[in-house]
Parts: sequence; structure tokens; C-alpha cells
Amino acid sequence: MAHKVIFDTDPGVDDAMALLFLHRHPEVDLLGITTVFGNAAIEITTRNALFLKREWNIPAPVAKGANETFDPARPHAGWPTFVHGDDGLGNIGVPDDIGIDPDPRPAHQFIVDTVRANPGEVTIVAVGRMTNLANALKAAPDIAGLVKQVVIMGGAFYCPGNITPAAEANIHGDPEAADFIFTAGWPIVVAGLDVTTKTHMKRHFLDDMAVRGGKDVELLQRVSDFYIKFYAHAVEDGMLVHDSCACVYVVAPELFTLRSGPIRVVCGGIADGQTIQKPDDMQFGASLWDGMAPKQVMVDVQSDKVLDLLSRTIAG
Amino acid sequence: MAHKVIFDTDPGVDDAMALLFLHRHPEVDLLGITTVFGNAAIEITTRNALFLKREWNIPAPVAKGANETFDPARPHAGWPTFVHGDDGLGNIGVPDDIGIDPDPRPAHQFIVDTVRANPGEVTIVAVGRMTNLANALKAAPDIAGLVKQVVIMGGAFYCPGNITPAAEANIHGDPEAADFIFTAGWPIVVAGLDVTTKTHMKRHFLDDMAVRGGKDVELLQRVSDFYIKFYAHAVEDGMLVHDSCACVYVVAPELFTLRSGPIRVVCGGIADGQTIQKPDDMQFGASLWDGMAPKQVMVDVQSDKVLDLLSRTIAG
Repeated sequence: MAHKVIFDTDPGVDDAMALLFLHRHPEVDLLGITTVFGNAAIEITTRNALFLKREWNIPAPVAKGANETFDPARPHAGWPTFVHGDDGLGNIGVPDDIGIDPDPRPAHQFIVDTVRANPGEVTIVAVGRMTNLANALKAAPDIAGLVKQVVIMGGAFYCPGNITPAAEANIHGDPEAADFIFTAGWPIVVAGLDVTTKTHMKRHFLDDMAVRGGKDVELLQRVSDFYIKFYAHAVEDGMLVHDSCACVYVVAPELFTLRSGPIRVVCGGIADGQTIQKPDDMQFGASLWDGMAPKQVMVDVQSDKVLDLLSRTIAG
Repeated sequence: MAHKVIFDTDPGVDDAMALLFLHRHPEVDLLGITTVFGNAAIEITTRNALFLKREWNIPAPVAKGANETFDPARPHAGWPTFVHGDDGLGNIGVPDDIGIDPDPRPAHQFIVDTVRANPGEVTIVAVGRMTNLANALKAAPDIAGLVKQVVIMGGAFYCPGNITPAAEANIHGDPEAADFIFTAGWPIVVAGLDVTTKTHMKRHFLDDMAVRGGKDVELLQRVSDFYIKFYAHAVEDGMLVHDSCACVYVVAPELFTLRSGPIRVVCGGIADGQTIQKPDDMQFGASLWDGMAPKQVMVDVQSDKVLDLLSRTIAG
């Protein structure tokens, strides 16, 4: 049976690959694309989602989401244009007008409606800031009991962050939203930097995919060039495919090793945005994690198999 | 040439093993033992240091240190009697009166005087809370440029804590002191839980040491029984020899893999007492770690060789 998926995203270069994977995987039924600010402002990430929908003939609707943090008092930090380009897709020159309207509902309402219409069946894959999820859960706490699962790309548990030494960018971009959704009673699986930084896609690998996959994958190749150049400090002529790791988990969970335990997010101070899990199998005294439902953190990954599945699904 | 060492300690069961290792290693010249509160109150840890000095005929003086945190406003959290026993040495029944007086100076003054008297030569091995070091450095900032190095057992960098999901007990016991000493300009090497939790000494291994080592090591064996029972949740019939890892580094640094970068300590909030390093080889934007001198964090250890060196040095 197909996995019904809502993809919450801020495209974003690695978001684009993840989207094409979800669109092409035969066991995924993509119900909707919800956009969030993060890799760029909401006008840009929504425009990019519509662009990718058009270019790749994706039937799922796009619903436009949040452009401010869950706590509106949190100061804005600027966009990572040095990672994703000024247009959020590697400066390929995305047109301003795509000619497709988004869904009339805001993203969080689209999430609520879709989860309620498919009780127990929807997997939300969230690869941007947690803002839409937090807004949806605040507006409709019942969805916590109605989703099948929430799979997140975000956080850094047993490794350094990427936006500060303590924090990963998606979580750091809205820590209050993240703490709210992690401490709620729905099932969450988290693909953090612990596994995504082990999953390197080399340029020649993507080039091979483009040769097999034709113009749809050539777009992915064009979009990724800027991103690959950014990642020169961390990956030899390649990139980290963060968001795709969360998507691959939906169809191939056996490729990941999980650790179970409740998760909290630091809000404020030098560790702002850090994700901290209390492993279920460890002893501690009374703590601020007590009484909270365990979540699953990916602590290891079979990277080669993840890359192989991405390649076969996207490029045939 | 011998390593001149000041051992700052809160005995404490694993402190006792570390002390016997320093006392017996032929390349270590133990200049003094300074006590700090942590595993028990200062009266108990000082009494225990004097007891071990007497039992093992250690010539180095004992100087009594701090019994309150660097920031006296920080609330006291209680002693870990479930780890080290009510007497701090596994409830073996340490006598109240040892019959030896401590050095007349407070520990931090002993540290300052000894470092100044041996410029460029003293290694401080600190395996309790960082309070004495912080008090010494505050009273005499010049010692930062006069020590050879500071080797610390404390912190949890790329693994969970042991007193909270975020923090290791020595650092959590006085985070303000730890942040003060980590951000100062002296050379620090840190043995955190990343390596000490990989270094399991089994009961039969300690029993073998006691057979070879006679009554001095039999005392260590008696002291450790309570501690081994506590560690049943984490180690199969054995214990973690946290403090000894820092001591072994002094004479065998080649057994450890280091990662370089400045370290900050979280003070307050859910991550209170967490140690966070900014690795020198990673890119970040402006951060609160900028402009601070790098410290060395142990990220891997050749545990078998550490155990072998402990065994040969302590028990022959």
C-alpha cells in the first residue's frame, strides 16, 4: 500500500532532489507540498515549489506556509543565500511567474485538513523549519493522534551543528516551534546531521543520474552546481543530500539505525536550537525530559544504499 | 624527564585508582593533591585524599579546596552517594581521623604557588569540578601562561551526558567555573564521556590486578565494589574508569585521538553544564566561540592499551 505523504519543504537545492524522489517513488502517494520559509523567504520557496511542480508535472497541490517564527518575537537571522543561491535553487534563474496558483489554504490548514481526511494514514515529511507543523498542531491538537508518523530532517544529536557549533539550521531557524512539536505526543523520526553528513553524493554520481534521467534530472544537476561548490569545505566534489535522507526513510526504514528517547530543543543561550535526546536505555535523575513520549533519532545510516535508492528512483 | 603533576580530585572511587596510577608511574612527579567537592562534600573528599595518601605512602601534600561553586548563587544539588557511597569511597568505612594534616593553604593557592614555582613545567590533572582551577585562575591570571598543560576529566561532546541528557557530572557541578577555565588562554586537553565511556574495566581484570598488586591494590578492589554494582546498568560486571583516562593521557597521549577547537559551557536552561566545541576544521558564521583559543577534546581512545597501562603501572 502506498505511503500517503505531505512534504513540508523550503526549496532549497536538496529539497528539490527530495521532492523528485517522493514524486517518482512508486510506493509514495504525494498528497501535497507545503512550503515554509528557511532556505529563502516564503515567497521564494513557494515560487520554487510551484516551479518544480510545473517542470516535473507533479499533480500534488502546493500550499504556502509560514514566513515568521512560531514565537514572532524571535529576531530574524537572514537567508542562507551562500548555500542555496539568491533564488533558493542555485541561481539557475527561476522565473518569477510560474503560472500556477497555490492551494487557497495556508500550509498549516492544508496539513490539518489532509491529516483529518486520511486518519492514521498520512506521513508528514518535514525538511525545513518546524513552523508549519507547530502552527498546525497548535490549531488542531487532534492531528497528533491522527498522523501515521512525522519524519523530520533536522537537528544534530551526537555531532556538531552546521549553523552554530551546537545547532542545525532547520531547528535553529525556529527552536520554539521545534520544541513544541518534539514534546507533543505524535510519532517522530528524526534524520539529523548524525546521518545526513555521512551521506555524500559525489558530482560524478549526480552526472550519471542526469545521463540516465534526461531533462528532469538535468534540472536537478543544474540546480545543484552552486550547492556542490558551497560544500567544497566538507565534501570532495559533492554534496550532502540532507532532505532526501528523511524521504528515503519513509520507504526504506531498514537503512537507518534508530535510538529511542524523548527530545527537547534548547531555546536561547549559546546552545540555542540544539536538539537533545534522553536515550530510553540510559539512567538519569529527574530531568526536564521526564514524562515525554520517546522519539526516534537516526544514529547511523547505510549511505551507499540510500544513494543507490535515490539514483534508481529518480533516474531509473 | 618526569611530568610534574598537580592532581585536583574529589575521591571518589575512580579518583582513587587515578591517584594510585599517578603515584606509581615512574615518569610522574606528583607535586600535590588538591581536593574539591563533587563526589562528596569537601570534608569527605579531603579526608579521603588524606586516607589514600596514608595507606599508599604518597609523599605529596594534600591541600583542601572549594566547597561552593564559582558562582555561589548556584543552588546545590546533593551528593552522588549512590555512585561513590556515603563515605565517597564505596562505603568501606574510612576512618574519620587520618592523623595527617592537610597543607595549610587552600587548594587554589597551592595551585598558584606550585605553578609559579615551576614555570612551564606543571601539568594540572583535574578530575572533579572545575572550581579550584577557576578560583586559582581568577586569583592569579598569570598561571594561564605558566602551566605546561591542563588535563581534564569532564564533559560530554558527541555523546549523551551522565547527570542529565546534556551534561556530564563534573562540568554540571559547576558550569560557570568550567566556562571560565575553558575560555581562558591556557592549553587544555579534555577526557570527556566520549572516551571514558568506552573504557570499561571488568571486575575480573581488577581482581587480577589485586592478586598481583597486594594490599595497596586490594584496597582499590574493596573501594570499587560498590561502584561496580552501580555501573551494572552500563557495564557488564565492571566499571568506567573515567578519571584514570585523564591521567593516562599525561604519560601516553598517543593512545587518544584529539579534535581541536574552542569550548564553551552552557550555563542555565535545559542544557545546563553541557560542553560544546567549535571544531577548528568546520565552517560557521559568527559565533560565541570566535576569538577563543582552541582546546583539545578526546574523541577516541585505544581502550585496551589504556587498561593495560593502568594494570601494569598500578599492579606491576
